[in-house]
Amino acid sequence: MALTPYQQLEQEFRRLHAFRGALSLLRWDAAVMMPRGSSDVRGEQLAALETEHHALLTTPKVARLIERAEAGASQLEDWQLANLREMRRQRDHAIATPPSLISRLAKVCARAEVHWVEARKANDFKLFAPHLAEVVHLVRDKAALLGQARGLAPYDALVDEFSPGVSTADIDTIFKALGRKLPGLINDAIELQAAKPATPLSGKFSLPRQKQMAAEVLKAIGFPFDRGRLDESEHPFTEGVPGDIRITTRFDAGDLFSGLLGAIHETGHAMYDLGLPLQWRDQPVGRDRGLALEESQSLLFEMNLCRSRSFVRYLGPLLEKYFQVSGPDWQEENVYKNLIRVRRSLIRMDADELTYPVHIMLRYELEKKILDGALAVVDLPGAWNEIMEQRIGVRPGNDVEGCLQDIHWAVGHFGYFPSYALGAVIAGQLNDALRAAVPNLDGELAAGKFEGVMEWLRDNVHAVGARLPVQDLMKQATGKPLTAAPYLRYLETKYLE
Amino acid sequence: MALTPYQQLEQEFRRLHAFRGALSLLRWDAAVMMPRGSSDVRGEQLAALETEHHALLTTPKVARLIERAEAGASQLEDWQLANLREMRRQRDHAIATPPSLISRLAKVCARAEVHWVEARKANDFKLFAPHLAEVVHLVRDKAALLGQARGLAPYDALVDEFSPGVSTADIDTIFKALGRKLPGLINDAIELQAAKPATPLSGKFSLPRQKQMAAEVLKAIGFPFDRGRLDESEHPFTEGVPGDIRITTRFDAGDLFSGLLGAIHETGHAMYDLGLPLQWRDQPVGRDRGLALEESQSLLFEMNLCRSRSFVRYLGPLLEKYFQVSGPDWQEENVYKNLIRVRRSLIRMDADELTYPVHIMLRYELEKKILDGALAVVDLPGAWNEIMEQRIGVRPGNDVEGCLQDIHWAVGHFGYFPSYALGAVIAGQLNDALRAAVPNLDGELAAGKFEGVMEWLRDNVHAVGARLPVQDLMKQATGKPLTAAPYLRYLETKYLE
Repeated sequence: MALTPYQQLEQEFRRLHAFRGALSLLRWDAAVMMPRGSSDVRGEQLAALETEHHALLTTPKVARLIERAEAGASQLEDWQLANLREMRRQRDHAIATPPSLISRLAKVCARAEVHWVEARKANDFKLFAPHLAEVVHLVRDKAALLGQARGLAPYDALVDEFSPGVSTADIDTIFKALGRKLPGLINDAIELQAAKPATPLSGKFSLPRQKQMAAEVLKAIGFPFDRGRLDESEHPFTEGVPGDIRITTRFDAGDLFSGLLGAIHETGHAMYDLGLPLQWRDQPVGRDRGLALEESQSLLFEMNLCRSRSFVRYLGPLLEKYFQVSGPDWQEENVYKNLIRVRRSLIRMDADELTYPVHIMLRYELEKKILDGALAVVDLPGAWNEIMEQRIGVRPGNDVEGCLQDIHWAVGHFGYFPSYALGAVIAGQLNDALRAAVPNLDGELAAGKFEGVMEWLRDNVHAVGARLPVQDLMKQATGKPLTAAPYLRYLETKYLE
Repeated sequence: MALTPYQQLEQEFRRLHAFRGALSLLRWDAAVMMPRGSSDVRGEQLAALETEHHALLTTPKVARLIERAEAGASQLEDWQLANLREMRRQRDHAIATPPSLISRLAKVCARAEVHWVEARKANDFKLFAPHLAEVVHLVRDKAALLGQARGLAPYDALVDEFSPGVSTADIDTIFKALGRKLPGLINDAIELQAAKPATPLSGKFSLPRQKQMAAEVLKAIGFPFDRGRLDESEHPFTEGVPGDIRITTRFDAGDLFSGLLGAIHETGHAMYDLGLPLQWRDQPVGRDRGLALEESQSLLFEMNLCRSRSFVRYLGPLLEKYFQVSGPDWQEENVYKNLIRVRRSLIRMDADELTYPVHIMLRYELEKKILDGALAVVDLPGAWNEIMEQRIGVRPGNDVEGCLQDIHWAVGHFGYFPSYALGAVIAGQLNDALRAAVPNLDGELAAGKFEGVMEWLRDNVHAVGARLPVQDLMKQATGKPLTAAPYLRYLETKYLE
């Protein structure tokens, strides 16, 4: 029996899925295993596979099949319709930007990244500025073309690529709510914490034992070590595909928690990927619902669930077992205080839960201004330092702790930052619904039990895959549209108790 | 300026090279890093990339470009002509067998491999026989089609795939010479060794320290750890591409030398790959000259250079440094005797230098008979045991130590085995020329110096790439056509001194 156009499309996208899995493994290897001198070779391999992936996705054959499948849409089931819609989305995105622009952007970004590294070494934004300007120039072209193709404003089109279905209007509403509430909250929390300060937990903690403890915690969460790996890399990340998921973290001998919480954060990503609908695993509809939702899963684990008194209670015996720590400093209350300590600081990646969204919001403002030309690239350092002082209350002494700290813009990732803060907001709202569904959640966490959490997340978030837009998913999972209210309430309760 | 057809071909094959590098990394990862449960996912990725590689190589566009480049061959330089010839060879091989046959063969082999594993567990060839018969059936079809396309007899076409330019006539001449000499040589060596037996070197040797020592030896040989890795896997192998080369070995706590010599063997492969002509690195003419030559490089290092008194002299202080071994058993003479001990044994992979080619020759006879139908698959165990007793002088007590020991036939690798013995013969002849060119070779080896070796090999073997057929390469490198004589002289000197 001949395959229908839709069935042929499933075959085509199965192949694309395998390509993406191979690409992911190549990236994982580059960050974790590859010898230092081999990045040129790896660059060629990645480029060849990405080019071919793009070519396969944009053949006239795929376009024809999509049209024919859409014409016969009445024959398709719900999941298949959603799958077809995602296929078109992927294909429209890919075809909107000509390969020549993509390859020029890739080259300019590769060069910009090198100069970003050098500018950081020299602590001099000027070395980076002309390259960033080139990147901005091409990203503008890309945004315009993407926007045309998807019927979106240019910046919205960039956001849509990372977090499908999320608009600037959504972001603005949410960020406005955060902007109204967070400054006061940060003030109050810092004052409150200053009144009863945490005793810092210093010491020297064996890296192999930190890794063993992290592995034990990850097993408790449900990370499948027969289908995944935990390794170390300069920055924590998740790569791979469901069925072979690879997470990393970075352990710090002087800090018992940063490596563990990094691993837990990535485990949140991994569990999401693993929970995606099995029967759609190799199809577009079986993928995650974009970066904002991905980030909600990692933050839910790292922040909402594990930076909590009940998780610290579970951790206590493990800390004793692996590091023989004891005494008042290592009691639940002081450990917990250390995990939720709020500080006005310069570096986003080291920021605490409460100030983190502010770091994001100022980047969002700046990148929109850069893209629409209201802010010239050369003026970025001044604007950065200004807004940092205004919003966070600290002023960078130089560019490395200022506008040179993030790699995102160097590699062309505009429209990416908002997903970090949106993720936190989504996690806040999911956290509410989760706690309603699992009444004894704190008891379970204190016992190192995550089955209840995982079951609810799988049913209400993971198993949806890319079948629904984020907004619909949230309505279905929590009964309400996405708003900042539950997140802000959660922060208030946690930091002003 | 528009690219010439030849230049366009270089572009196409550059891309194919990147694909092969990615495939190699996926295989390396599967053997060294991948979680146990992820082989299904990896299988899909490998299949997708291999299929695409095949498709890209066999497009009408490539065929047209080859024809047009051949028509303009007078414009090309020597290297380019050789490159064009290799492009045609690759393309003709790929196009000769229809994708349907290749994919059927891949599936049948995957199934056969599973049943080979099970048959080994159950120690019962009958569980494997019907699957091997299926493999044989399809390999026959493939050999016939390949033979037609390349103007070769079917079995020669299979050999040609692994070791380009090597014919059954070459193999028969060489194996005949070996067959005349080796039985007597083995007898005499065993008698001689029995008269002055080596004292076995037993003990328990830390695996991490074995790995450190191996790394120190590999550095001395010149293995570039900034462009390559040494890891552990069930069987030693080399993967990757020049620029990112990955070797593995297996360390045995009870045997100080098997892991080290395994690593040295693979380093021979790696140094060959690394020495290939840099400016042709991503082109067909820049590849190795097939399996027989590859094996000559690994065996030259493992057998000719490192199972030697002078290398043992270099090793002495390292053994003391890493393992604090001393006493008469650890003196040069006894260590050397252990490294060249000859035994009539059942398992090819554990065989010594002297009996190894006999293991290969009997497989060569058997696989030709199986392919031309003179030997039925069901009759293989009896034939195997018979010929083992006849040629090696020991009779397997069961199939696991008999015809079930090798994976090659299960995965469809007929025509592969001869390259192992040819490699030893090639190494023997290169060894002569190398010693003539580097008169103080033994002194250098004893000092852990490999610069002289590497320089000669690079100039005379590695830098040739695939520009010449094996026979021409040998004439150019050694002044003589390939014969078994130097190899047999080398064995005689070494084992009957």
